[in-house]
Amino acid sequence: MKDKNIFIVYAHPEPRSLNGSLKNFSVEVLEKLGHHVVVSDLYAMQWKAEVDADDFLLDGRNKPFKVVSSSKEAYATGKLTDDVKAELKKLLWADAVIFQFPLWWFSMPAILKGWIDRVFAYGFAYGVGEHSDKKWGDRYGEGTLKGRRALLSVTAGGWSEHYSERGINGPIDDILFPITHGTLFYPGLDVVKSFVTYKTDKIDGDRFVDITAQLRVKLENLFLEEPIPFRIQNAGDYNIPVLTLKNEINIQGRGFHIHQR
Amino acid sequence: MKDKNIFIVYAHPEPRSLNGSLKNFSVEVLEKLGHHVVVSDLYAMQWKAEVDADDFLLDGRNKPFKVVSSSKEAYATGKLTDDVKAELKKLLWADAVIFQFPLWWFSMPAILKGWIDRVFAYGFAYGVGEHSDKKWGDRYGEGTLKGRRALLSVTAGGWSEHYSERGINGPIDDILFPITHGTLFYPGLDVVKSFVTYKTDKIDGDRFVDITAQLRVKLENLFLEEPIPFRIQNAGDYNIPVLTLKNEINIQGRGFHIHQR
Repeated sequence: MKDKNIFIVYAHPEPRSLNGSLKNFSVEVLEKLGHHVVVSDLYAMQWKAEVDADDFLLDGRNKPFKVVSSSKEAYATGKLTDDVKAELKKLLWADAVIFQFPLWWFSMPAILKGWIDRVFAYGFAYGVGEHSDKKWGDRYGEGTLKGRRALLSVTAGGWSEHYSERGINGPIDDILFPITHGTLFYPGLDVVKSFVTYKTDKIDGDRFVDITAQLRVKLENLFLEEPIPFRIQNAGDYNIPVLTLKNEINIQGRGFHIHQR
Repeated sequence: MKDKNIFIVYAHPEPRSLNGSLKNFSVEVLEKLGHHVVVSDLYAMQWKAEVDADDFLLDGRNKPFKVVSSSKEAYATGKLTDDVKAELKKLLWADAVIFQFPLWWFSMPAILKGWIDRVFAYGFAYGVGEHSDKKWGDRYGEGTLKGRRALLSVTAGGWSEHYSERGINGPIDDILFPITHGTLFYPGLDVVKSFVTYKTDKIDGDRFVDITAQLRVKLENLFLEEPIPFRIQNAGDYNIPVLTLKNEINIQGRGFHIHQR
């Protein structure tokens, strides 16, 4: 497996951080594997995080500013800003997208959330396909980015136990579900299990060697690993348009895991 | 119940939006109830969303920039920036904090995430109390903001069914758990059940009347309602320091709900 296009979206303010090192390591490994790698270093790019009317070059037609309809019109008519257009191009170029970031308050750093908020336009990442009583869009397993892969590589200060099945923070895969399922699977990406580095305040040389050895295996298997088996919206498991899991899907309990096959 | 101090953190780029209207409505209702209200309108304030070395006035001592230790030193020595200090003062003034925002990609808008990332400093919101093998800080029900309340008022484009127990997006209270539990209960706030407005693309005058009638009741009961019964970290339910729920806590299944009493 070589000659794939990999897009890394990286969000940390300090190049000499663990996140910076893991990003550099991934670039090196992926290029050695024969892939093509492009990085968006959001801090270095001084990425604008806040969605506002300036994002849509609609000549005053977006006043009062409506986020969704402005996004729809601007995407359809090529009136998004150049910074956003460049990211859209990278996404469409990529066979896989890797997000490298520290977990801050159990989610992405604001600058990365702002990348999602601004790049994931209406007509591109949402509002794709027929929306009616019979069909609720091409989403959750279908959509613009179908056929591509995504991986979260996340660092966390806490211990893996704190993020385990009965850990106080909640299971890490559940904490990341609004991202893996709600943000990446939504426009069609196949998301592989997240790569999480814990106890980041105590990383010495030995641990860094261990972590990068694991990350190397993860990257080598990026296109071979089975993705998280999230249920595809339009494959028969959900009632439309209420989009509740059908009663005959006999899965017990509550929680995000019921949305996996 | 009157004469309470209420701090509203509001994040929407358009004053004439549903979120702007709900914020204005809340201010009006709360003031009529005899409370004192302060609003941080993050877009109007041009709130800086990105954490970087400029947030900590440490004279180059934060190079290479380490987020956690810079935050710790800057908070302890009064070297946070004035915009952050002003928000800390409002939090300490408040008896309750209300967050009014649209749900974008199943989380906060970037500008609000950046408010959390920058204001929730080490020594204030995390890194509070003894951290050892015997105790893992004053957090999850204890900490600087103990005795105060928090409420999320969130708007969502989807239907309530999509966010129900078996809805495709996941249950709304689980989607908001990284915020209610991981961000607000963490530094000690008592969080009441979130107020969620659905189907926001179709709000006519009649529905707005219904929604505000419900919000009025919610606000009238802000200090009376039982908070979400999240388990307090240091009250005996968790093994320390691994912070897993004790085996004798006989709660079945997996998911965030096991962290409620």
